[in-house]
Amino acid sequence: MAKASWQGTNLPRVGGFNRAVVLDTIRRRGEISRVELAQRTGLTAQTMSNIVRALMADGLVTENGHAPSTGGKRRVLLKVVADAYSSVGLHLDPERITGVLLDLAGGVRLRSTRRLPDDAAPETVAAALARTLQQLVRRSGIDESRVLGVGLAVPGPLDSAHRQVLSPPNLARWGAVPLADIVAERAGLPVVMDNDATAAAIGERWAGGEHRSGSFVYVYWGSGVGVGVVLDDQVHRGVSNNAGEIGHLNSGGGRGCHCGRRGCLETHCSMRAIVADWRAAGGEPTGTAIAQSYEELCRRAADGDAVAVKVLRAAATRLGQALAAVVSVLDVDRVVLGGPALRHVSDLVRTQVSKVLSKQVWAPEVRPVQVSPALIGEDAGAVGAASLVLDHAYSPRLATLLGSGSDPS
Amino acid sequence: MAKASWQGTNLPRVGGFNRAVVLDTIRRRGEISRVELAQRTGLTAQTMSNIVRALMADGLVTENGHAPSTGGKRRVLLKVVADAYSSVGLHLDPERITGVLLDLAGGVRLRSTRRLPDDAAPETVAAALARTLQQLVRRSGIDESRVLGVGLAVPGPLDSAHRQVLSPPNLARWGAVPLADIVAERAGLPVVMDNDATAAAIGERWAGGEHRSGSFVYVYWGSGVGVGVVLDDQVHRGVSNNAGEIGHLNSGGGRGCHCGRRGCLETHCSMRAIVADWRAAGGEPTGTAIAQSYEELCRRAADGDAVAVKVLRAAATRLGQALAAVVSVLDVDRVVLGGPALRHVSDLVRTQVSKVLSKQVWAPEVRPVQVSPALIGEDAGAVGAASLVLDHAYSPRLATLLGSGSDPS
Repeated sequence: MAKASWQGTNLPRVGGFNRAVVLDTIRRRGEISRVELAQRTGLTAQTMSNIVRALMADGLVTENGHAPSTGGKRRVLLKVVADAYSSVGLHLDPERITGVLLDLAGGVRLRSTRRLPDDAAPETVAAALARTLQQLVRRSGIDESRVLGVGLAVPGPLDSAHRQVLSPPNLARWGAVPLADIVAERAGLPVVMDNDATAAAIGERWAGGEHRSGSFVYVYWGSGVGVGVVLDDQVHRGVSNNAGEIGHLNSGGGRGCHCGRRGCLETHCSMRAIVADWRAAGGEPTGTAIAQSYEELCRRAADGDAVAVKVLRAAATRLGQALAAVVSVLDVDRVVLGGPALRHVSDLVRTQVSKVLSKQVWAPEVRPVQVSPALIGEDAGAVGAASLVLDHAYSPRLATLLGSGSDPS
Repeated sequence: MAKASWQGTNLPRVGGFNRAVVLDTIRRRGEISRVELAQRTGLTAQTMSNIVRALMADGLVTENGHAPSTGGKRRVLLKVVADAYSSVGLHLDPERITGVLLDLAGGVRLRSTRRLPDDAAPETVAAALARTLQQLVRRSGIDESRVLGVGLAVPGPLDSAHRQVLSPPNLARWGAVPLADIVAERAGLPVVMDNDATAAAIGERWAGGEHRSGSFVYVYWGSGVGVGVVLDDQVHRGVSNNAGEIGHLNSGGGRGCHCGRRGCLETHCSMRAIVADWRAAGGEPTGTAIAQSYEELCRRAADGDAVAVKVLRAAATRLGQALAAVVSVLDVDRVVLGGPALRHVSDLVRTQVSKVLSKQVWAPEVRPVQVSPALIGEDAGAVGAASLVLDHAYSPRLATLLGSGSDPS
């Protein structure tokens, strides 16, 4: 029989949800007393105390000294046991692979990166991903049973019903590749996959604590560009897990895109397109690889080279125009800019995007839009991928509470 | 002390939420047995049975005969008591006011409409709204204590923190007007206000039962155009209650908009703009009022007039382009088209919007987008406004469950 669109909830589900809320609150605060924890979560002291006892028995939470005295009895502080569990994050950018090992508190314990050849075949990429993963686990000395899982961040769009990557930018000849399953088989560990922008947005939420609560859009600018959408503390993935896929929004201009359409945002904002624009404007990159040439452009822009600045500003303007639509449709007031394309030029891009948004978003006096740099630097994709696993295992999920909803593939 | 971004939940909140889930499920099914109700809501028979008893004691639910026998004991059917409560919906379009009186089952009991003079002043409009409301209640013969409240649907954008309407299209000289409070004061009833697209989307949800569950965007096309956003069965309002405000998305072309920017979608898709385009293409409307001229255009298009068809298709193309961005950012697969601008030309517009979406939205093979006509006709704004009140009082709300979140102004 079909379910109602709303399901009621019940005690076991409420218990699981409240447990996740308590763990999340401890993690976000770093250290917290039981009294403050009860106040912040809105739970009764008794409920909260039972949950904390269970979390301590499971080795996820520990007592960590006392808060400074405020006159009465000094309060015991709770904190998350950072090395209770780890997760591995792998990011395919797609010119390089970055891997990180994250502890339960969100700290990066190990990092590794390797370049990929241009136009690498899926099997080559999968083998490199699996090797990065295995080396990280080996170097860490952590027992594999303490690794919760592997997160894989890939350029969107995805066909996530089939766990497939679809023709990522710069790997256009791939077609549909079941990358998560290939890596899982090679590595012998469960793999969750999401697009890089969504993963990075989750990483920001995980790392950012109270600075990344509520609603915001996270712009991941790497080889291509995408947006991760967080609404009311929930990552919004959409019906096909492609929410925030802005790379193929029509941005005008009529340039042919690898997807077969014309005028897609990526024909102006991918690293490849920007480097081509730089060449067209007289720029002469010394290397041939796109990522190297792009970095050279950015260094020049940071040094004040007028042509380089103009080329980057033009790309940032197109991005700002697309973000004006995103901000208007979602009605969010915070935009976070992250990803490796911003290295050296974060301020330049942020200034330009802010300028475009203040002009193109309706009624800035009613809803001023704040544009901030990401908290996590260029490893946002990999840290986000590892956070996917932690988020999956430990974040409060409405789907849990309501006994419905879907999870990332 | 600041709350955590997530609050835990507790028994009284769970009780209120489950009660709303049960009532919502009965209403959506029309008639339902207790057994099916327990299956659909996922609640235990005991919990469900207690809730039904309380709903019957409050006069909201009643028993209504028996289901056909399936061999065993015939099951008693439950249904909502439609005339237990009513609500009034008022819609400012802004060339006319439409009012409806809705019963608890979502049935329209009474309807009333009055034209407004061009460029009406806020006080004139408020007086006409209050008069429409009072006449509806008087004609219905319903005791005022049985009227749950008044919903007001207005063209966006809103400054809902201050319960103000901001320069609606065709009433551009208004500036910021606290319309809800003015009407509440005149009418002596509480008034909730939302933009017309959000109200109409809620009306579709209320009326559409299982056909309007999950996620969809509702396009309200009247004097102007806006979108109501429903994600996972929750109306998404955004931080300033202006989510889905697409009227000022940049649509290209550089026409000056009443908001001060150029190229806004409304410079192509408002009734006023379309009528101007018709004149520019040689059309000669017989009347002078915009709404009349627009209707004349639509009648001609429906009769196959080539110029009229071309003008409307051009507007539908611009709308489709804006919707491509909405669909891509939100990752929804259903678009519902409604509102009075579609009278006579629903099929023409739907065909054109579908065509544009299938070309401009990335990867239709992964996420085909279905475009459907609205279930509620041209009274969508008023029915939606009345549904706001019912939704506010009776729909399952995550905010209730979590003890947080915000409501419409």
